[in-house]
Amino acid sequence: MTLYLNLAELLGDRIEQGLYRPGDRLPSVRALSQEHGVSLSTVQQAYRHLEDQGLATPRPKSGYFVPASRQVPALPEISRTAQRPVEVSQWDQVLEQVSSAPDERTIQLGRGRPDISVPTLKPLLRSLSRLSRRQDLSGLTYGSIYGDRSLREQVSRLLLDSGCQIAADEIIITTGCHEALSAAIRAICEPGDIVAVDSPSFHGVMQALKGFGMKALELPTDPLTGISLEALELALEQWPIKAIQLTPTCNNPLGYIMPEANKRALLTLAQRYDVAIIEDDVYGDLAYRYPRPPTIKSFDEDGRVLLCSSFSKTLAPGLRIGWIAPGRYRDRVLHMKYMGTGSTAQLPQMALAEFIAGGHYEPHLRRMRAQYQRSRDLMIEWISRYFPASVKISQPQGSFMIWVELPEGFDSHRLNRELRAHGVQIATGSIFSASGKFRNCLRMNYAAKPTATVEQAVRTVGELAAQLLAEQAG
Amino acid sequence: MTLYLNLAELLGDRIEQGLYRPGDRLPSVRALSQEHGVSLSTVQQAYRHLEDQGLATPRPKSGYFVPASRQVPALPEISRTAQRPVEVSQWDQVLEQVSSAPDERTIQLGRGRPDISVPTLKPLLRSLSRLSRRQDLSGLTYGSIYGDRSLREQVSRLLLDSGCQIAADEIIITTGCHEALSAAIRAICEPGDIVAVDSPSFHGVMQALKGFGMKALELPTDPLTGISLEALELALEQWPIKAIQLTPTCNNPLGYIMPEANKRALLTLAQRYDVAIIEDDVYGDLAYRYPRPPTIKSFDEDGRVLLCSSFSKTLAPGLRIGWIAPGRYRDRVLHMKYMGTGSTAQLPQMALAEFIAGGHYEPHLRRMRAQYQRSRDLMIEWISRYFPASVKISQPQGSFMIWVELPEGFDSHRLNRELRAHGVQIATGSIFSASGKFRNCLRMNYAAKPTATVEQAVRTVGELAAQLLAEQAG
Repeated sequence: MTLYLNLAELLGDRIEQGLYRPGDRLPSVRALSQEHGVSLSTVQQAYRHLEDQGLATPRPKSGYFVPASRQVPALPEISRTAQRPVEVSQWDQVLEQVSSAPDERTIQLGRGRPDISVPTLKPLLRSLSRLSRRQDLSGLTYGSIYGDRSLREQVSRLLLDSGCQIAADEIIITTGCHEALSAAIRAICEPGDIVAVDSPSFHGVMQALKGFGMKALELPTDPLTGISLEALELALEQWPIKAIQLTPTCNNPLGYIMPEANKRALLTLAQRYDVAIIEDDVYGDLAYRYPRPPTIKSFDEDGRVLLCSSFSKTLAPGLRIGWIAPGRYRDRVLHMKYMGTGSTAQLPQMALAEFIAGGHYEPHLRRMRAQYQRSRDLMIEWISRYFPASVKISQPQGSFMIWVELPEGFDSHRLNRELRAHGVQIATGSIFSASGKFRNCLRMNYAAKPTATVEQAVRTVGELAAQLLAEQAG
Repeated sequence: MTLYLNLAELLGDRIEQGLYRPGDRLPSVRALSQEHGVSLSTVQQAYRHLEDQGLATPRPKSGYFVPASRQVPALPEISRTAQRPVEVSQWDQVLEQVSSAPDERTIQLGRGRPDISVPTLKPLLRSLSRLSRRQDLSGLTYGSIYGDRSLREQVSRLLLDSGCQIAADEIIITTGCHEALSAAIRAICEPGDIVAVDSPSFHGVMQALKGFGMKALELPTDPLTGISLEALELALEQWPIKAIQLTPTCNNPLGYIMPEANKRALLTLAQRYDVAIIEDDVYGDLAYRYPRPPTIKSFDEDGRVLLCSSFSKTLAPGLRIGWIAPGRYRDRVLHMKYMGTGSTAQLPQMALAEFIAGGHYEPHLRRMRAQYQRSRDLMIEWISRYFPASVKISQPQGSFMIWVELPEGFDSHRLNRELRAHGVQIATGSIFSASGKFRNCLRMNYAAKPTATVEQAVRTVGELAAQLLAEQAG
């Protein structure tokens, strides 16, 4: 990417994150030129790009400003969390969520599915199809427990983009990120142990904690910067925490990117209190800014970070191919992988390795990032338009999921039930909490092409939410 | 299959199991006709078939006899087992075993791989290839946590052959049998709990017990009839056993088929002491006799049997598609599946459903049963010829694995190490024990076409074993 686009994205992120509010003056061309070590014309190009995106307005002789008309929807609150570790509940709600099969008739805004209908995925399908017909049948036999060598080499190369230098030998292929996270947790913790998590947090991890009999300590989480480091430090002081599990880059469900300084500070805390970090980076490559933000793992010096990821969000979830870079916990993680699934399917690994080696991954990512960013803007517009005025919305900096907060007492379970008759489904907020908090919130997916049908579905959710709120008040 | 072939297989099994010894007189044509309710000519046809197989010799006016020349290799001993539950060890040995990737140069007699080079698998590859190219891309998205509906319906139909009437709704698709077994164990037991197992026993299960912090109670196991019911009853009396885990049909590694009466008696014991049964049936469809033997699950009345299986041995392991019929433990098993892998890959499920619905499964099975049975006979011949005279050999009644016992003190680990230089690999006996017993045993695979290269590999193993034994004695 060129210098000016880089700068434009950086400024754009700051504006979107609310560092500059509507009507604010933006930094001068000269100041930016000095700060970033680029030419004046590069800064001017960047500002023209922001103008095109409606994020900056020039005023003659005064420089650039954030458009006063720019709507900045209110952000969700910083989560108020329990003050102590709890056993995880909510399985019934999660099961309801994940039981649904793909269904043509229902608009599924609830599930974490990427758009798989794009032409940039076609080379992957061709590889799958060609490898299936191959005479040596290597796709049908057991592979190594570590995973396919060629795929591990490609993953090792991709990890460079997030600042990680991790050899193929240090990467284990898993059956989706689910298996990576589950193996990571079990590699570190025993039943009864406490794991600190962001809040709201991915339900897959919390249900694994439940299944293994561990406890979750939900930490206050800022919708722009992530887990509160102050709260984390207090918790580390107070409780015998074994691991910190979080999704710091393009968080699910809040969409924030934890600032690099916070990532470093969190690692320092983990070192000081000698706890492991389980970093879920499954959406990291879908950050709208380029180059993508570094992982916490990229700063790791003593192997305490277990980086978990997959191709389920960037490419296709049905492949069930993920990976883990387990650092110093490699032997335990291998054991967990062996007992969980033995080995991971060979054919999709071989097809993925071919796809990436063939140079198809990066163009696909570029396309998806741009598509999801445009859809994010539309989604925010629709929610602002169709939801009750009291709504608060996250500002996703990557991925394809948005978090919507309604006033205290709103019941997203009831909303979801009533949406059935309209053929729409959302994810209820409470599955993102160990103890059923966030019942007044919901998560929606904007991966699908933003058609009139999707707009209508969002409108239905908004109008039904308004109706339920009115009943509640009445 | 025709009546006479049925009868011939039954008699053949009895001869091979040593119920009739070389030189013994076999039952008269008339007696068999009455016992089995078939015509005299059917019995005569059956005997002629046994003659062709070298299992029976006619003597004029005297009837049929087991050929005196027929070598019946000695059977392995009934396992002597620990008298109390133990923590599982042997992970390092198992890891060495499962780390190896497919390698053209090494003859891998050690791993549990079926022959995937047969033409009867081609329709499966065609389905995989065709579905990959399909425009609706349903193979790339998340499926239901329960698995693909059409595949569950096919599995439900296949289960009828083992005597089970289980609705598709009661079947959950898993990522190989590994996930089924792991989920079953975790659905029933807590850390510290005791699970009774056959001995020798599948290492995947024992390593799962290790990973979950449970204890294994290895029970004496007869190489022809399986787990000792007397020992099991004593154990149930003495210990708070939570579950019995076993592979009663075409046992891995011993190859026996537990008699139906024993299966029923085992279930009765489980009912009396209120424990669950985790039944691994992954080789059940590969029983050489037809129709295949019933599962314990087929007698289950109160949902205490969790039947675990897969297509990894019957079709292809690289697909990583298994299933579980979890009976009354369905909700817990679902939770374990969700935390382990989320859902199972869609594409192979769809291809398998097509393959089975297209009528390709049964012909493939027929071919494989016949091929494996012929190879079993050859393998026994080779082992008898090339191994030290003190060798004892299992008499597999299905699947493609044989268990070889050498005298006490023989070290199969050392054998395996020294075999490396010869490009041959076997499975050491100790991985089939929780506590490293059976170090004097080894398991070999006879799935591959029995070429001169395979014969040479078996010869190498035998000769090296003889050499090590001689050194040991010297």
